[in-house]
Amino acid sequence: MRYLEDFAVGQTYESATKQVSSDEIKAYAREFDPQPFHLDEVAAGHSIFGGLAASGWHTASLTMGLLVRGDLDPAGGFIGAGVDELRWPGPVRPGDELHLVCEVLETRESRSRPTHGLMRVRVNTLNQRNETVQTFVATLLVQRKPR
Amino acid sequence: MRYLEDFAVGQTYESATKQVSSDEIKAYAREFDPQPFHLDEVAAGHSIFGGLAASGWHTASLTMGLLVRGDLDPAGGFIGAGVDELRWPGPVRPGDELHLVCEVLETRESRSRPTHGLMRVRVNTLNQRNETVQTFVATLLVQRKPR
Repeated sequence: MRYLEDFAVGQTYESATKQVSSDEIKAYAREFDPQPFHLDEVAAGHSIFGGLAASGWHTASLTMGLLVRGDLDPAGGFIGAGVDELRWPGPVRPGDELHLVCEVLETRESRSRPTHGLMRVRVNTLNQRNETVQTFVATLLVQRKPR
Repeated sequence: MRYLEDFAVGQTYESATKQVSSDEIKAYAREFDPQPFHLDEVAAGHSIFGGLAASGWHTASLTMGLLVRGDLDPAGGFIGAGVDELRWPGPVRPGDELHLVCEVLETRESRSRPTHGLMRVRVNTLNQRNETVQTFVATLLVQRKPR
């Protein structure tokens, strides 16, 4: 478990990998993003994606799973104060294996909560060819080391 | 179905409502965000949330479901070029009923794709007391009216 003081700008953290199946892409889409290009190979083939692709919010959800199970491990858990610059530069396809590369951009004390600080982290999600399929900057609320 | 030319700055769109159950909060969390405050009432009571709360990415996913099933209905579907300023100003609790209020902020032609344009939309997710539980600005790729 890492307190705010254990993080420093420029540190990087990687994650385990997570393979995404066609069934998972469709199951997420049925519940949360029922658009043809996330649900059906044939329809997806005729869409702007040119084939079945995961919902961007599915990729974000899978990324959260990799973060929570990874070794960044902020004290108090992952409490998101906000996310900026969320982009999906490439599609996630059935069978793709995702992993994360995270870089600490900034740490600072919190004015309103003396027990906590804020940390900005760039979270990049890459596939098995090291192509970036998603990127965002998260601002996390992280506990400070107890005195 | 609305083409880029059918949207104008300042237009607002609302959505249907979606109630969120404790079981849904926990099921999403087990798969994507397995942190105690999303999984277990007792642990959540001792956390910064003071009770079970939905993962922010779950709220984002539910928001996408309301968007896709709503009447904004952009031609070509919801193709996200990016999301900015994603914030969760309040928690989503079991039993909460969510709905959206969306406002068109900007529409413009795409330089790289003459058949498409880009639209920026503020998407606010509110609960049954009209408290904002999530807000973001989406940039969508929208088809232009065929000549």
